[in-house]
Amino acid sequence: MLFLGVQFNPTVGDVVGNARRIAATLQSIPQWEELLGGTPDLIIFPELALCGYPPLDWLEHPSLLADCEEALEGLAREFPEYPILIGAPERNTGPGKPLFNSAFLLRNGGIEKTFRKQLLPTYDVFDEARYFEPGKETGAFVLNDYSFSVAICEDLWFDQQPGLYSIDPLYHVPTDGIICISASPYSKNHEEERQQIFQKTIQKNQKPILYINQVGANTELLFDGRSRAINKHGEMVVGADAFQSSLLPVVFEDGDFYGTEEQIPYESHQTMEDIYQGLIMGIQDFFHKNKFHKAILGLSGGIDSALVAVLAAKALGPEKVLALLMPSEFSSDHSITDSLELAKKLGINHETIPIKGTFDALRQACEPAFKGMGFNVAEENMQSRIRGTILMAYTNKFGYILLNTSNKSELAVGYGTLYGDMNGGLGVIGDLTKTQVFGLCKYINQKEEIIPNAILTKEPSAELRPDQKDSDSLPPYEILDSILEAHLEYRITETELNDRFDPEVVKKVLDLVSRNEYKRYQAPPILRISGKAFGIGRRVPLVGQMPR
Amino acid sequence: MLFLGVQFNPTVGDVVGNARRIAATLQSIPQWEELLGGTPDLIIFPELALCGYPPLDWLEHPSLLADCEEALEGLAREFPEYPILIGAPERNTGPGKPLFNSAFLLRNGGIEKTFRKQLLPTYDVFDEARYFEPGKETGAFVLNDYSFSVAICEDLWFDQQPGLYSIDPLYHVPTDGIICISASPYSKNHEEERQQIFQKTIQKNQKPILYINQVGANTELLFDGRSRAINKHGEMVVGADAFQSSLLPVVFEDGDFYGTEEQIPYESHQTMEDIYQGLIMGIQDFFHKNKFHKAILGLSGGIDSALVAVLAAKALGPEKVLALLMPSEFSSDHSITDSLELAKKLGINHETIPIKGTFDALRQACEPAFKGMGFNVAEENMQSRIRGTILMAYTNKFGYILLNTSNKSELAVGYGTLYGDMNGGLGVIGDLTKTQVFGLCKYINQKEEIIPNAILTKEPSAELRPDQKDSDSLPPYEILDSILEAHLEYRITETELNDRFDPEVVKKVLDLVSRNEYKRYQAPPILRISGKAFGIGRRVPLVGQMPR
Repeated sequence: MLFLGVQFNPTVGDVVGNARRIAATLQSIPQWEELLGGTPDLIIFPELALCGYPPLDWLEHPSLLADCEEALEGLAREFPEYPILIGAPERNTGPGKPLFNSAFLLRNGGIEKTFRKQLLPTYDVFDEARYFEPGKETGAFVLNDYSFSVAICEDLWFDQQPGLYSIDPLYHVPTDGIICISASPYSKNHEEERQQIFQKTIQKNQKPILYINQVGANTELLFDGRSRAINKHGEMVVGADAFQSSLLPVVFEDGDFYGTEEQIPYESHQTMEDIYQGLIMGIQDFFHKNKFHKAILGLSGGIDSALVAVLAAKALGPEKVLALLMPSEFSSDHSITDSLELAKKLGINHETIPIKGTFDALRQACEPAFKGMGFNVAEENMQSRIRGTILMAYTNKFGYILLNTSNKSELAVGYGTLYGDMNGGLGVIGDLTKTQVFGLCKYINQKEEIIPNAILTKEPSAELRPDQKDSDSLPPYEILDSILEAHLEYRITETELNDRFDPEVVKKVLDLVSRNEYKRYQAPPILRISGKAFGIGRRVPLVGQMPR
Repeated sequence: MLFLGVQFNPTVGDVVGNARRIAATLQSIPQWEELLGGTPDLIIFPELALCGYPPLDWLEHPSLLADCEEALEGLAREFPEYPILIGAPERNTGPGKPLFNSAFLLRNGGIEKTFRKQLLPTYDVFDEARYFEPGKETGAFVLNDYSFSVAICEDLWFDQQPGLYSIDPLYHVPTDGIICISASPYSKNHEEERQQIFQKTIQKNQKPILYINQVGANTELLFDGRSRAINKHGEMVVGADAFQSSLLPVVFEDGDFYGTEEQIPYESHQTMEDIYQGLIMGIQDFFHKNKFHKAILGLSGGIDSALVAVLAAKALGPEKVLALLMPSEFSSDHSITDSLELAKKLGINHETIPIKGTFDALRQACEPAFKGMGFNVAEENMQSRIRGTILMAYTNKFGYILLNTSNKSELAVGYGTLYGDMNGGLGVIGDLTKTQVFGLCKYINQKEEIIPNAILTKEPSAELRPDQKDSDSLPPYEILDSILEAHLEYRITETELNDRFDPEVVKKVLDLVSRNEYKRYQAPPILRISGKAFGIGRRVPLVGQMPR
């Protein structure tokens, strides 16, 4: 038998458009059949493929469900020649939440059967218990005398969440194989966890697994795809590319999965390449799905904006990116020359607007109120906010989207200006620590020498007063980032941190994290690459006292 | 028997501080005993009183749970003379989520028993399934030969959520009465719903109910308290004041609740007074719990900033409020005179910083790039962002907290400038439509003539270009606000809206709501007074297509 997985990139909420693209894929299959080696016996789309994942509160709109129901019936009617397994929300007519997160088997022109997700992730970025009622059994269907159990994403994860769930949907399945449709987002350790979970599932069942995952970026979440087939011995026989839409043909014979001849064997993943590809896809989908066309960013001569410029140029094409240089009296000469060199290497557009005149006028306006108070953080932030205002004026005048260049370290400790350099429609590197920013820049330069060496080697500085350095106010980044990761991602308590780091530094960092929560509340959406990003997966009070 | 309910205002996360204030309350009881008419037989605190509600992801910090356990044991040990019923998270040692949302009965120096919340609200602003495992039974305890069932907040709400829950924790309780500890937030229709739910519970059980609710504001949520006792005939025999910390003594005799003599009968609530008191409490707790001292706001001469000025002066005292006037060349004379008159009436401080010089300098800096493009929304927003920058400079220089003055109507349709007038630490009136802003101002002026009539009667205008009026770009507010309420709060579909309003206007409004989601994503936290506020209770994608 030939199974065809579609590693699909849906647009959230656009049920009609997604259905149209699904239909286009199905229509195109005959022309691929020679390459595929036959007519598919089953075509598989990811979890909630019709409405996209995560649909969040749009699930509560009656029109979304109605559109999904209509689209499912339409696809079944239009393509009776292909059995199709596809994810969509299903109306719950019984007690509980109004929906199930279901897989629909379309066959012979109608909806033959539904399979309901049993384990509903409700942690970090996931809110499924907010919308869905859990299914009560692991369903199966028969295809050419073989039977297949259907699992949906988290249904596979019982073993990886020790104690969290009290039923295991894949405990000794009685069928010949498992098909899992998924919308499993990327994070830097997630692929290792997936591999573990496939092994554990194989150990329990000795049944092959076909795993079809969503791909693409939706607001903060990056979906890497990496759909695959694993045979009953636990070997990955075929896998789809990461971070790209693709078709995955898989052969099922004598009770096991096999790849077809042309397929590229699965390459082991590499953290920096993943982050690089993931962020590029994140920018692309943010722009394309929202019908945005061109990006602007402030290029300071520092490493953060340099990295965002590289990623934007790769994602959108250099001609779609404008770098704005906005020097002040505190900008060093090399900030400008380094920025210009980078812009030239990337082939992106650049313009320069000095901020001194505006800064002087603003200080003069405030002079009666601020008289005799000297230059402090107020004047530092003024400069950043003037730059933010100029960038936004460009977006208003020409239709650019502003890319935000804040990194996770500075967001964590509030080393940035709200309504200034924190401005932007998308936080491109807001889930990368400064250490990771350096690492990714070096990785990029190993591929191709793009970022001027001066940018990589200069000491980080906000250049908002004479001779300012980040290290004047912050611990060295290697220490800061270690404390931040331990606190944010692993919730190591202050007492435990004090065993590993200078307690004074620990206190300072945790005080800053706590005190700057209000800034992050107003930050742009951030592309998520870690296990705990600032954004929807981290919900903390703004009023109160952070436990530590 | 004498029961004493403590309508408590906890600070979220501050377990040690909350425990200290709980202990202080318990220590003070002997001096109240004459007034109370005896020694309490049971003292009752609200749901999660030790850590405050909602603790959100702070529940995942190991130190919070450890502090709660220590505090519970300490209170039990320190006050063996009082049986105490108090809400706190409880460690779950079995399968499932790591915590229960529990009530602890402290008696004779130890923790005698726990009662676990069974219905976990996971909708709108509530995320309880993210943290808690549901309890499996409705527990009870005996006090002086009478038995009482214990419910926690949502446990009472089975009938009000038809079909949502499959068990009713209060279905024919076999005890003599029900004690419900709660952290039920205010919204304008919530008190009617509570009254219905009490009546339904009495009808099912014919048992009296004692309901002790949290009071105070925590980030976005306002808790009105309104603790009360309801006798077995469904009559409210005694109730605590709304929006204030208080003690509620209640007599239990012959199987029913009675008020004590001195108590004020419960007053029926009034929507505008509730909103007025709620927002004042919201400002107070935002400042006091965060140890902020003084507020600044931009006073434009319009009704929104006038209302926020009144609320801030009432909440913090006029001497703690600075109104900044920032006229431009487009400001009308009356904007300034009306603002000055209001500031004088309120007794708040005011200063004036014209923005013309900065605006001219900024335009000049952008001139090479914007040459020949004319004056448009870019220049309008520049003015708003210069004002936002000046206000933030004041916060940086003097330690003010900026109050945001955006209303719900303009937030919904994006009629405001991100990083400009959308700036602020707290959105005071961001859940009031423009219609409600007018209504509340009139209500305030009926109490006391504070807001100059000219501010109430002038046509709304942003004054960012000559002769600008809100009605140039938006439908009349009475129509806009009706469409917004139907769409946002009740999810009426576009098709249904088209039956009630001009379809062209409906399309325009929904387009604006959809297109401006990115601005609201970066808005400050908003004090919630409706059933669906912008903020944590409304989670929508920024990338994709809004169902409508």
